[in-house]
Amino acid sequence: MLITRKAEFSASHACYRNDWTPEKNREIYGESANPRGHGHNYIVEVTLDGEPDPVTGMIFDLKTLKDIINIEVVQPFDHRFLNHEVPPFDRVVPTTENIAAEIWRRVSAKFPNPAGPKLANVRLFETDDLYVDYAGPSR
Amino acid sequence: MLITRKAEFSASHACYRNDWTPEKNREIYGESANPRGHGHNYIVEVTLDGEPDPVTGMIFDLKTLKDIINIEVVQPFDHRFLNHEVPPFDRVVPTTENIAAEIWRRVSAKFPNPAGPKLANVRLFETDDLYVDYAGPSR
Amino acid sequence: MLITRKAEFSASHACYRNDWTPEKNREIYGESANPRGHGHNYIVEVTLDGEPDPVTGMIFDLKTLKDIINIEVVQPFDHRFLNHEVPPFDRVVPTTENIAAEIWRRVSAKFPNPAGPKLANVRLFETDDLYVDYAGPSR
Amino acid sequence: MLITRKAEFSASHACYRNDWTPEKNREIYGESANPRGHGHNYIVEVTLDGEPDPVTGMIFDLKTLKDIINIEVVQPFDHRFLNHEVPPFDRVVPTTENIAAEIWRRVSAKFPNPAGPKLANVRLFETDDLYVDYAGPSR
Amino acid sequence: MLITRKAEFSASHACYRNDWTPEKNREIYGESANPRGHGHNYIVEVTLDGEPDPVTGMIFDLKTLKDIINIEVVQPFDHRFLNHEVPPFDRVVPTTENIAAEIWRRVSAKFPNPAGPKLANVRLFETDDLYVDYAGPSR
Amino acid sequence: MLITRKAEFSASHACYRNDWTPEKNREIYGESANPRGHGHNYIVEVTLDGEPDPVTGMIFDLKTLKDIINIEVVQPFDHRFLNHEVPPFDRVVPTTENIAAEIWRRVSAKFPNPAGPKLANVRLFETDDLYVDYAGPSR
Repeated sequence: MLITRKAEFSASHACYRNDWTPEKNREIYGESANPRGHGHNYIVEVTLDGEPDPVTGMIFDLKTLKDIINIEVVQPFDHRFLNHEVPPFDRVVPTTENIAAEIWRRVSAKFPNPAGPKLANVRLFETDDLYVDYAGPSR
Repeated sequence: MLITRKAEFSASHACYRNDWTPEKNREIYGESANPRGHGHNYIVEVTLDGEPDPVTGMIFDLKTLKDIINIEVVQPFDHRFLNHEVPPFDRVVPTTENIAAEIWRRVSAKFPNPAGPKLANVRLFETDDLYVDYAGPSR
Repeated sequence: MLITRKAEFSASHACYRNDWTPEKNREIYGESANPRGHGHNYIVEVTLDGEPDPVTGMIFDLKTLKDIINIEVVQPFDHRFLNHEVPPFDRVVPTTENIAAEIWRRVSAKFPNPAGPKLANVRLFETDDLYVDYAGPSR
Repeated sequence: MLITRKAEFSASHACYRNDWTPEKNREIYGESANPRGHGHNYIVEVTLDGEPDPVTGMIFDLKTLKDIINIEVVQPFDHRFLNHEVPPFDRVVPTTENIAAEIWRRVSAKFPNPAGPKLANVRLFETDDLYVDYAGPSR
Repeated sequence: MLITRKAEFSASHACYRNDWTPEKNREIYGESANPRGHGHNYIVEVTLDGEPDPVTGMIFDLKTLKDIINIEVVQPFDHRFLNHEVPPFDRVVPTTENIAAEIWRRVSAKFPNPAGPKLANVRLFETDDLYVDYAGPSR
Repeated sequence: MLITRKAEFSASHACYRNDWTPEKNREIYGESANPRGHGHNYIVEVTLDGEPDPVTGMIFDLKTLKDIINIEVVQPFDHRFLNHEVPPFDRVVPTTENIAAEIWRRVSAKFPNPAGPKLANVRLFETDDLYVDYAGPSR
C-alpha cells in the first residue's frame, strides 16, 4: 500500500552552467537560462510503500512524515534562490529532474530501515503542467 | 489499459481504539483521536485494468462502473459517521489506509470474472494533501 | 484593494433541530440531518479591504492575518464535531450559512479600527460545488 | 525517471457506430451516442521515461516535447469534431480509450530511438472525473 | 448573503453566423468558427442572494436549487450540439456571453417571488482560463 | 457583463527596501525579505466589463485580450527577477498588492475608449492560498 503526502515551497532557480556561454545556456535551457533566476510554487508529493500496522491501521505516522518533509525539503528550499543558497545546486543545475533526485536523497536517508516503510516515489511539480517522478536510482 | 472513475463522499470518522486510553489514542492518532469525530470530503478513484473491446472501444461500461461505485461506496459511506454506522469500522479503525482497503474489498467483489477487466487500484484522498493507493492484497 | 487568504479545516456537523422530529429534520435537511454527523474539508477565504501602505506596499501583515484565521477559526473548528464542541453550534444549526456568519463574527472582531483594513467578505466552501459568501450584517 | 507534460484541447465527439441502429448505439453508449456530438476540454498528459543527461540535467528538451504534443495532438484535435475531421475517428469510435491509443501512436512515432527517452504513458482526461491511462500495446 | 452551487455539462458549439461568409466568421470567431463544432466541459455557478431563514439557517433549499439547475440547464444542454439542438442557439450565436445570458433567463424565471431569494449571478466557465459573469439585464 | 481571462507567469521577487536594515526588512516582510529572491507561479485574472455586441455576441475579441495580457504582462514578467529586471520594481517593492496595481496600469492603458469595454478587475494569485483584487484607483 502507498501513502502520499503533498507539500509546497516557493523558490527561485536558474538553469545555466557557468562553464557554458550565455548563448549556449540560452540554446539549451531557453528562458530558464536567465541567470537572475525566476521562480515557482513547487509542489512535492512524497510516497511511502509499506503495510499498515495491523493494530494502528497506519503505514507510518503522518505527523512524523510531515516533519521529515518540512525539515528535509520545505525549510531548506522555501523562499530560497536554489543556485545560490541550497547545495548541491551551486554546482548541479536545478532542473526539475535534479531537484527531484535531491529530494529523494534527503528523504530516503530518513527511511534506512529495510523492515519499515520505504520511500517509493518523489513527484515534483514545477508548474501545474510539468512534473517529474523519481523512484530512486536504478539497481 | 487503465480507466479511472472518480467519486466523492462526505463522512466523519474518529481514529481511536476502544482498548486504549484516551492518552494513548491521542499519542498515536493526534487530533484525529477526538472520539466525537471530524470529517472530510473523501475523493475516491477506482481504476480498472482491461483491454478495450474491439467493437465498442470500451474497457467497461461507464454507467455500470458509476453504479457500482455508488452502490458499494458512496451510498453506504456518504453522510455517515463511519465508526458508528458503517461496518467494519465499528471494530476496524477507519484510517485512510483501512478505508481504502475496505473500498477495495467491496468493489473488487463486483469483478470476479478472470476474463474481464480487473480492479487495479483504489486511490483515496482524505484531503487534497494526503492520499492512499491500494492495489489489493499481496500475492 | 482586496486581499484574500485561504485556510482549511476538517470538521463534522449535523443539520437538525432538537425541537423537531427526526422526520421533520429529514424533510428540511435531507441526508445532512443524520444526527451522528458527517464531515467536510471546509475551505474558508477571508478577504480584507484596505489601501496598501505606501511604504511597505502591504494592506495588512500576512503573518498576522494567518495567525488570526488560525486562532479564531482553524484551531477551534478543526477536527471537531461542531454541534457538540463549538459554540454557538450547540444551539444554532451549523448550516454553511450559519458557519460563515460565525466566522465573520470571530474575525471581524479583530478589525475594530475604522481607519485600518476592514473585513470585507468570508467565503466558505462546504464542498467544491457549494459555497457561501457573507459580507457582514446589512446596515 | 519520468517527466510529464500536460496539454489541453477542446473537441467534440459522438460515440456511435454507423453499422448499429440508433437504439443499439443508445443502449451501449448512453447519452454519448447523440450523433450531433458533444464536447469536452480534454486534458492529455504525456509521460517520457529516461535518464537525465548528466551534463544538462534534463531527460528531454521540454520545448521539443511541447512542440511534439502541439503538432501531433493539439493542432489536429483542437476545435474539431473528431468523428468527421480527424482520422481514424471516421471509422474508429472516439471513446476515451481509443483517443488515448491514437495519441500514443502519434507521439510514440516521434521517439523511435531505442537509446533515447521512451514514451511511457498517455493519460487522457475526458472530464475531471474520468480518465484513461495507456502505456502502449502489450508485448 | 450569497449561496453558490456549481454544476457541469459537456456540450459542443460553433461560433458562426449563417448570414456571414466562412471567411468573415473565421475573422471574427477564429477557430471557434468551425461549423462542425467543438466542445467544452462547461462549468456553471449559480448564485442566489437572500437572508438565511432564522429557523432553518438556510437561504434556500439546496436540493431544490440543484433540481432547478439540472432541469433548466444540465438536462437540456448536456451532451448536445447547442447550435442545432438547444434554442435559441439555432439563431443566437452560442458565445460564452450568450450562453450565460440564456442560463440567467432560464434560472431567474424560477425565482419570481420578490420576497424570496433572488438570482444574483451566473458564472460560466468555457475553459479553466475563460469565464463570464452575468448579473442580469441592466436596469 | 464581465469576461475574465486567466494567464500565468513564473517570476521571482524579494520584498525588501534598500533604505531599511536587513533586520527591519525581515521584521516587516518575514522570509520574503531574502534579497536573493524566491519565486512563484503567479496567476493573473483580467476582467473586462462591457456589453456583448448584439451581432457578434462578444464583449471583446478574446484573441486580442489574450495578446494584450501576453504583451503587457506575461512577456515582460515571465522568467524574470522582478526587482532587478522589471520596472518599477527596481524602486517599488513587488508585494502582491503592488504587482497587481502595476498590471492594472499596464492593461487599463489599452482600454482608453470610454464607449468600449473597461478593465474592471485584476486578480493576482501569488500562491493558491493568497490573492489580491484591484479594481483601479479610488475616485
